[in-house]
Amino acid sequence: MNELSAGHTRLDSYVDRYAARTQGMTASEIRALFAVASRPEVVSLAGGMPNISGLPLDVVGEAIGDLIRDHGPVALQYGSGQGDPRLREQITDVMRLEGIEAHPDDVVVTVGSQQAVDLVTRIFCDPGDVVICEAPSYVGALGVFKSFQCDVVHAEMDADGLVPEALRQAIVATKAAGKTIKFLYTIPNFHNPAGVTLSLPRRREILDICREHDILVLEDNPYGLLGFDAEPMRALRADEAEGVIYLGSFSKTFSPGMRVGWALAPHAVREKLVLAQESATLCPPAFSQMAVSTYLTSHDWQGQIKQMIEMYRDRRDAMMEALEDFLPASCTWNTPSGGFFVWVGLPPGIDAKAMLPRAVTARVAYVPGTAFFADGFGAGSMRLSFCYPTPERIREGVRRLAGVLEAEMELREMFGATATVPGLPRSGYDAPSSDLS
Amino acid sequence: MNELSAGHTRLDSYVDRYAARTQGMTASEIRALFAVASRPEVVSLAGGMPNISGLPLDVVGEAIGDLIRDHGPVALQYGSGQGDPRLREQITDVMRLEGIEAHPDDVVVTVGSQQAVDLVTRIFCDPGDVVICEAPSYVGALGVFKSFQCDVVHAEMDADGLVPEALRQAIVATKAAGKTIKFLYTIPNFHNPAGVTLSLPRRREILDICREHDILVLEDNPYGLLGFDAEPMRALRADEAEGVIYLGSFSKTFSPGMRVGWALAPHAVREKLVLAQESATLCPPAFSQMAVSTYLTSHDWQGQIKQMIEMYRDRRDAMMEALEDFLPASCTWNTPSGGFFVWVGLPPGIDAKAMLPRAVTARVAYVPGTAFFADGFGAGSMRLSFCYPTPERIREGVRRLAGVLEAEMELREMFGATATVPGLPRSGYDAPSSDLS
Repeated sequence: MNELSAGHTRLDSYVDRYAARTQGMTASEIRALFAVASRPEVVSLAGGMPNISGLPLDVVGEAIGDLIRDHGPVALQYGSGQGDPRLREQITDVMRLEGIEAHPDDVVVTVGSQQAVDLVTRIFCDPGDVVICEAPSYVGALGVFKSFQCDVVHAEMDADGLVPEALRQAIVATKAAGKTIKFLYTIPNFHNPAGVTLSLPRRREILDICREHDILVLEDNPYGLLGFDAEPMRALRADEAEGVIYLGSFSKTFSPGMRVGWALAPHAVREKLVLAQESATLCPPAFSQMAVSTYLTSHDWQGQIKQMIEMYRDRRDAMMEALEDFLPASCTWNTPSGGFFVWVGLPPGIDAKAMLPRAVTARVAYVPGTAFFADGFGAGSMRLSFCYPTPERIREGVRRLAGVLEAEMELREMFGATATVPGLPRSGYDAPSSDLS
Repeated sequence: MNELSAGHTRLDSYVDRYAARTQGMTASEIRALFAVASRPEVVSLAGGMPNISGLPLDVVGEAIGDLIRDHGPVALQYGSGQGDPRLREQITDVMRLEGIEAHPDDVVVTVGSQQAVDLVTRIFCDPGDVVICEAPSYVGALGVFKSFQCDVVHAEMDADGLVPEALRQAIVATKAAGKTIKFLYTIPNFHNPAGVTLSLPRRREILDICREHDILVLEDNPYGLLGFDAEPMRALRADEAEGVIYLGSFSKTFSPGMRVGWALAPHAVREKLVLAQESATLCPPAFSQMAVSTYLTSHDWQGQIKQMIEMYRDRRDAMMEALEDFLPASCTWNTPSGGFFVWVGLPPGIDAKAMLPRAVTARVAYVPGTAFFADGFGAGSMRLSFCYPTPERIREGVRRLAGVLEAEMELREMFGATATVPGLPRSGYDAPSSDLS
């Protein structure tokens, strides 16, 4: 252990010391991309960063300066493990926009909704337990499930979101295999990465299936207030209080740098979540919670969201137009009615992951579909985001991407398809058929 | 699952669904106390909240307001999973005060150092793995170890901190029992709850023993810069880079509401910690990290710490004087040379946990010693904190406590000791013999 005797040996020796769960912690494909895609010459259609340039920084800065001057002894001190009572009250106001009637007592504030996924998984999942996820699903949640040694079973989506019959089949098959399903993880609105939204009739069906099979639902809804065309959809939680844990976040409607999200949970589960939160962090940051609370009080946050919606709608439109104008005819995609992402199906035989280095060379980045599957599928798809780059950059990015795709297709034509692409379109969402231009 | 069919059944049914680790998540004795002890008429000698009333709130408020105005697009955005590069650089400056030469690349920012304990345990500990802890040890760390289903083996302390021979015996006995030791968790400076500090010669000895037995050291050092009499002690990490993970925090030297702590780890471990952090929160809050960074840049933080030291020294002195003036002769305690806490041994037969309700009725609160042991010991001791109440309140609190103790002793004398107190002084720190008044 001293430098003479065991310097390198010791470094290597950690390998055998980690917990079994640590095997499941690997760098995501998105993460590896960040370094490359952040170079200014690259148009990144990869990241999911909200565009917060519209925030009134003067107003926010002044309000938070005042917060410290006037309430510093509270804002800078330890807070409650469950989260600031006033903020939890305000959170119930936010959720009311989606039809949820809840008590602040049942809200637990988390370090972004990512931590809510982590805490829920921590309290529910033993190694080998199954979480049912949409195909594709959010890469950050898949990482959590993997790190807690869960088995992920995917259920297909189409243009109307999670397919009820696919969910039913996944449940029945998993139970038949003698496995324990701990919950369904679903993103009903403006899905990351698929861009689709669960239709109203399907919401009822999905809840019915979960009731019938006694499956807890983890409803992750970071984008719910960012719909382009209509009022916010009614949350699953609005129609089922005992069987749904609802996750929300201020990361997309105010600021991800605050890391303030929340879980709304049935009372018994809420108690466990608070204990898990205390173990994880003692308490979420009082400072950023009160900053968010101050923002909600001192600023027209709903008006701000309306502005964000207009900006994101313009970018979605730029993305759709560019896809139409530039992408090869054999590509498929949906038209997202909110959120940040569009899911693009590639021409047969094209592997999005293999193509990525060539795309980055051509100064455009995306996330290959495989990142969003726990089972190796998704190579024939990619996620494009329209949240952060300007409409002009989006158009230029798609133009570059189209060039890369065409070169790739020419190559394949010249030399033939020498290898099958792993994990290419199975039935269901990876080969979508409706709502596509 | 709907209201008619299974309302209550479903609530109860969660009991069988939690992960095995969730059994280990129980409300700590400190937590149950907070509600009671926060009533204004109670003198709380229970909590570990720093007294931040000396912070220049005007200056801090203005600096953070400017931060948002001038750097909002970064401060309010997602950040790096490892933490803000500039803050990590500043953290290496802070650690240099304790003799640590480190590279910012090896620092991982965490949501308070509590989260650092959580992440380290997460990546290293499988159920049944052993963590060696001092007897007593920090209640929040014991909670983490329990929630990850670790077995805690305690090693005795005395007035010079962890007893090397006790550590050696704990290691040998644990290995002989066929168990795997993942690390030694130790608080070398101004121990929480014991108030003692590991002497310099012992630091070398402890490191030698850990090297000899190839045991990783988790050095938790939230109070290291809050010494009353001398320059900061040399950290264990200063003399051993590969075998020590060092944890630090701004909670006691600036603001716990920021929840900014850190881990300094060997390179391979650091990589795993970043992956674990990304899984847990995506990234620690950019906003509070930049706020801390701004504070360190714009304010004489070392001068501020000197002021804090003077304030805490006065309170320590008030505590010592009151203990001397009021406590029964058969009580024992040490004189802490820094930090927040003093550990009091009670007269034979007094059970601190059983006495607590009577103490709260007499309007004084403390934490019973059992909270700081994983094995039920500690009933004959209590932790008193002198960080938050004023010197006058400390004196009044100890006066009340002495009254409760004397009544308790009279009762015992009248009715005799009908039952043995569980977990009463074993050899070692629970029955300290030196450095006591």
